[in-house]
Amino acid sequence: MKRTSFANWPCSVARTMDLLGDWWTPLVLREAFYGVRRFDEFQRELGIARNTLAERLRRLVDAGLLEKHVYETVPVRHEYLLTESGRDFYGVIAAMTTWGDRWLAGEAGPPIIGHHETCGHDGQAEVVCSHCKQPLEAGTVTPRPGPGYPRKLLLRPDVRRRFGLDEISDER
Amino acid sequence: MKRTSFANWPCSVARTMDLLGDWWTPLVLREAFYGVRRFDEFQRELGIARNTLAERLRRLVDAGLLEKHVYETVPVRHEYLLTESGRDFYGVIAAMTTWGDRWLAGEAGPPIIGHHETCGHDGQAEVVCSHCKQPLEAGTVTPRPGPGYPRKLLLRPDVRRRFGLDEISDER
Repeated sequence: MKRTSFANWPCSVARTMDLLGDWWTPLVLREAFYGVRRFDEFQRELGIARNTLAERLRRLVDAGLLEKHVYETVPVRHEYLLTESGRDFYGVIAAMTTWGDRWLAGEAGPPIIGHHETCGHDGQAEVVCSHCKQPLEAGTVTPRPGPGYPRKLLLRPDVRRRFGLDEISDER
Repeated sequence: MKRTSFANWPCSVARTMDLLGDWWTPLVLREAFYGVRRFDEFQRELGIARNTLAERLRRLVDAGLLEKHVYETVPVRHEYLLTESGRDFYGVIAAMTTWGDRWLAGEAGPPIIGHHETCGHDGQAEVVCSHCKQPLEAGTVTPRPGPGYPRKLLLRPDVRRRFGLDEISDER
């Protein structure tokens, strides 16, 4: 059975999740952030089946997060390097790590501690508003359709209700 | 076939992913952040099968991100409210949204724009270091085993190499 595809939903969470495909993919990225570049090394660190790993790496290359690069010509050997969009995914992994450290580590405490070389201190991830730099908290962000929202969906009553579009027109 | 369980890995990314289970779960949470509380409303907004939704809600209640609450007694009806840990997951969803807006929206632009009520401006998520408040960038964080890292794993040569443990002792 084909799983539901979220790629065409007008939602960046759904699209991101569609791209990742399954839970192995963030772990492959995590290894890349640890500095892993070669197939055998990904395989050893994750204990993942070779065909599964090959598929996840191909997916990440196709999506532009990793770049396949020849590092040896005789015989031909490849390594996988993070691209700009791949490196930019670090924030998502860091936010996930901090949440897991806070809520899933229990009394044992966090399994891994991150030392932020830029400032020289141990640090966790904090998700803030790009404008005011204050923590971005649930319930403080109101969504509205952006330029990439399909125009025809905006005619649907459920979508209008979701974004409170008719209330906004009333107020103006 | 049972999928690989990541729950016992000493890694908060793996644990968080194990808890979420599949890509529907973050979308259920996204709806909760939009203010959705009732089964039928989750079902309508996501177009998800009722048994799949029931399983995801149960998982989120068991994991402590949602709380099942009676809002009507005759007949008994429940709603699902975000707990403190559930609300705290907002940062992860927000970071994912911003990444998707940046890298997957294409020329059409972001499907949704978020207005940060706290500061009164449209904003995106930025992931910063909790200590210095500077953006947390790939390659700037060095991991080391924390209190929750299994002691016996620290004897393994591959683990010691991963964290550069022997290099650290040499330097001291």
